[in-house]
Amino acid sequence: MKTKKENNSASKLKIIPLGGLEQIGMNITAFEYEDSIIVVDCGLSFPDDDMLGIDLVIPDVTYLKDNIDRVKGFVITHGHEDHIGALPYVLRDVNVPVYATRLTMGIIEHKLDEHGMTKSVKRKVIKFGQSINLGQFRIEFIKTNHSIVDAAALAIYSPAGTVVHTGDFKVDYTPVYGDAIDLQRFAEIGKKGVLALLCDSTNAERPGFTPSEKTLASVFDNLFEEHKSTRIFVATFASNVDRVQQIINTAYKFGRKVAVEGRSMVNIIETAIDLKCINIPENTLVDIDQIKNYPNEKQVIITTGSQGESMAALSRMANNMHKKITIGPGDTVIFSSNPIPGNEKPVTKIINELLRKGAEVVFQDAHVSGHACQEEIKLIYTLVHPKYSVPVHGEYKHLKAQGKIAESLGIQKENIFILSSGDVLELSEDNAKINGKVPTGAILVDGLGVGDVGNVVLRDRQHLAEDGILIVVMSLDKYSGMLAAGPDIVSRGFVYVKEADELMEEARIVVSDTVENLIERGVSDWGKLKSSTKDVLGDYVWKKTKRRPMILPIIMEV
Amino acid sequence: MKTKKENNSASKLKIIPLGGLEQIGMNITAFEYEDSIIVVDCGLSFPDDDMLGIDLVIPDVTYLKDNIDRVKGFVITHGHEDHIGALPYVLRDVNVPVYATRLTMGIIEHKLDEHGMTKSVKRKVIKFGQSINLGQFRIEFIKTNHSIVDAAALAIYSPAGTVVHTGDFKVDYTPVYGDAIDLQRFAEIGKKGVLALLCDSTNAERPGFTPSEKTLASVFDNLFEEHKSTRIFVATFASNVDRVQQIINTAYKFGRKVAVEGRSMVNIIETAIDLKCINIPENTLVDIDQIKNYPNEKQVIITTGSQGESMAALSRMANNMHKKITIGPGDTVIFSSNPIPGNEKPVTKIINELLRKGAEVVFQDAHVSGHACQEEIKLIYTLVHPKYSVPVHGEYKHLKAQGKIAESLGIQKENIFILSSGDVLELSEDNAKINGKVPTGAILVDGLGVGDVGNVVLRDRQHLAEDGILIVVMSLDKYSGMLAAGPDIVSRGFVYVKEADELMEEARIVVSDTVENLIERGVSDWGKLKSSTKDVLGDYVWKKTKRRPMILPIIMEV
Repeated sequence: MKTKKENNSASKLKIIPLGGLEQIGMNITAFEYEDSIIVVDCGLSFPDDDMLGIDLVIPDVTYLKDNIDRVKGFVITHGHEDHIGALPYVLRDVNVPVYATRLTMGIIEHKLDEHGMTKSVKRKVIKFGQSINLGQFRIEFIKTNHSIVDAAALAIYSPAGTVVHTGDFKVDYTPVYGDAIDLQRFAEIGKKGVLALLCDSTNAERPGFTPSEKTLASVFDNLFEEHKSTRIFVATFASNVDRVQQIINTAYKFGRKVAVEGRSMVNIIETAIDLKCINIPENTLVDIDQIKNYPNEKQVIITTGSQGESMAALSRMANNMHKKITIGPGDTVIFSSNPIPGNEKPVTKIINELLRKGAEVVFQDAHVSGHACQEEIKLIYTLVHPKYSVPVHGEYKHLKAQGKIAESLGIQKENIFILSSGDVLELSEDNAKINGKVPTGAILVDGLGVGDVGNVVLRDRQHLAEDGILIVVMSLDKYSGMLAAGPDIVSRGFVYVKEADELMEEARIVVSDTVENLIERGVSDWGKLKSSTKDVLGDYVWKKTKRRPMILPIIMEV
Repeated sequence: MKTKKENNSASKLKIIPLGGLEQIGMNITAFEYEDSIIVVDCGLSFPDDDMLGIDLVIPDVTYLKDNIDRVKGFVITHGHEDHIGALPYVLRDVNVPVYATRLTMGIIEHKLDEHGMTKSVKRKVIKFGQSINLGQFRIEFIKTNHSIVDAAALAIYSPAGTVVHTGDFKVDYTPVYGDAIDLQRFAEIGKKGVLALLCDSTNAERPGFTPSEKTLASVFDNLFEEHKSTRIFVATFASNVDRVQQIINTAYKFGRKVAVEGRSMVNIIETAIDLKCINIPENTLVDIDQIKNYPNEKQVIITTGSQGESMAALSRMANNMHKKITIGPGDTVIFSSNPIPGNEKPVTKIINELLRKGAEVVFQDAHVSGHACQEEIKLIYTLVHPKYSVPVHGEYKHLKAQGKIAESLGIQKENIFILSSGDVLELSEDNAKINGKVPTGAILVDGLGVGDVGNVVLRDRQHLAEDGILIVVMSLDKYSGMLAAGPDIVSRGFVYVKEADELMEEARIVVSDTVENLIERGVSDWGKLKSSTKDVLGDYVWKKTKRRPMILPIIMEV
């Protein structure tokens, strides 16, 4: 495939998103110039509602496998699952070095460790301002702000020109940890000339500016002041180290001890402590086992589960299913989060549950987004001043919205590219066009199985989920071809059999009559026996119940 | 049960919600005084995400069945599914007269007709201001405003005092059809003394006033002006006759023809036309088959599917699955609706799909709520001035929010009752308390089956949905007890068998070894054979895949 060194497209830069444009998450984009390919991010996505039983979804990287000799490395913008989560799976087939900033790498290493891959993967921590050379590319890491520490934008220098990839970002002039986004560097690079800008679209529909993370300091101070006499729980995203920092700051101010609960949050906070990305006053953090030794009004419990996840710590604490902590009357629960689209119902469910338990619930105004709103997007476009606009990171409507912003800033409509996964965007100094398509797709992970659940299995699961299954078993005599036993019908997920014997018995008779009749007429073809069983039982059941369970005839020969 | 005429609770008024407080929808409340029971509303609810394959959910009315001699009738506030949808099911067991206003009854009659029940159910249309006597109760219908025409509040007069039930309502001073809510009558009744107020809580968390339906007239005018040259689609709720009226008004003003699409909307608009609840200028409404005979800029298509329902007209038109209309480049689609909580994801999906097809999508500011916000709730409390507050219609957090409003208006905390379904609230002039509980529950309707899918079946469906099923079949010789055939393994929804023969073959050997070993050792108990098969196959599969499919051993005797 595709090493078209000989033809004239060889000297063009190609941008090939391998995922992330047909779904939220699964961000992964290849940049290609002649014999060099680099890959920005390698994320997973979470299964859609119709992907029954699926744990997570990873990108199909056939294109990288087919071009493995040219792939120089993964360059990672930040440590969120939708940007790093597929690494342990993809690195098995495409084992190239991984480059990332400090905390991002810390989180990646934890992940590789869980998969027993720490030794087999080369990796290098990069500082902001530092560049790496990968084949014909040079990549510079630029400081940005986001809802996780150590997020980076990338300047990708190629012989065909420079591309800026913002990663996920916001403009925070007063960040909690580290510096503000390096706007000067964006400006410098822009001044020298940028071919294309790949910019975060998440909040492209929202006017104005996303508030600084630090605005929450006084919010937490006020909430703690209002709830001086109660135990306080704060639910937030596991990876938002700055948020945890601010809650700890306020807790310390009010003389409270803090425990962190929820495996993913504990992991990330431990990594952040190791890397000194979080600053915890002495004697403030206590173990979840110890916190009950302090009076209620001296406790703060920071927890996962702000999205209503039924197995997360908050949900278990609300439903008396947590071993150590139970939320009840007099407790205050602060949601320092917004529901991610699609999670509104589970979040409301947990709020109702907490209120019913007698807790007070605060679920507004204790969160700020980690993504740039319209004015921030305009700022970055204006500093970078790209020739071509390539909105990334968002649903189609968000990409469209960013396209409109780009247009409003004077970028010509034909220079704005809303790509689909697999599109090959070819760029040169004076030209850009979508030229061809590479294979992409979503690979489903279910337990240990990667890719062994596909459309056939999913359709079966959906069918089983809808109306259950009727299994018809019968034994045929090997020599006479006559019925030796059955047909019997066993059902699961169809009706409560104890209260439906009549229906099930009638169904058995219907099938039995059909099969006996066929056999008497000399039909011995199993395919025919099975399809007749399916038809006659399907019709009978539909007539009686208006349901269409899966019907599975099984014939044994004895 | 419960005809406690002899004891001193006999002269108390009882309010017994039989549904609607543990879920959205399924509104049904019994009012009981001595030998008289009346029932306000009889709604359905839609299945939760974990109720796989379920079509709809209706209330368990065991309490009404047990007290059938005392039940005088159903009094219906308005024609939404969550207030009338269970009638065809419940009336089969509790066949008492139904009382409702004109359009409400029109919609009920259509429903009864579909179930072939028009002849068997007594019903009476009631006018606003009119009262009916049902046993010891008198019930007065009071005009309100809501997102459906002909919505009523009820004043329920009993020897123990008066209760006001708002139904679902908003205060609309400038309604599209008919009069504004009869605030004077609320005031009059309040002046005479009201024991308890049951008030709509849906928007109790929202400050301010819900805007008038009529504010949308200029919104539609402006949108039509902006999109003068395109075909216009407007997606809204099927039952919002006033909304359809306003869209038609604007269409007429702009010289466009209107077609209505989507079965439920067509039904309701037909009923509304029959009852003159909608006023359509001549030659404006055309059949969906005819509309394509007009130029694009002369067409308006009002459609269902604003909640992203995959089988509704809008979705089919967006996905080229509609027989008559396909939405494409140049079309404008206006969402005159908000996503109902839980529908955010499907709504976003259809918006992305429409944008991808090249349509322009307007999904903001073309909708107003049909429920009262905080200031309207305060107004009703102030006019009615009840002694006891019983927030209804909402999730727990909404009921709580209304409780807080009631408290802020001076109602004592102990006089505010946040009930659960089945609670018996006993009221007399000087006392109110929850005294006992009646049976309640949710009955699942799946196809023609009412109640035949319960927890066992649902759990099976969930299990099947998660990891599929492995069926192990074997035949045993009747005389020798030896294996005559099998064991064979058939799977559905587990792995794609064509690419997993090795796993399946190994699994078969594991089971085969176990069963043969047991039989050789003289084990003939089928229960033992089955449970060993389950254990050994379950362990094997878990070890290999980290999945737990349902395992179903079937033994035949030949």
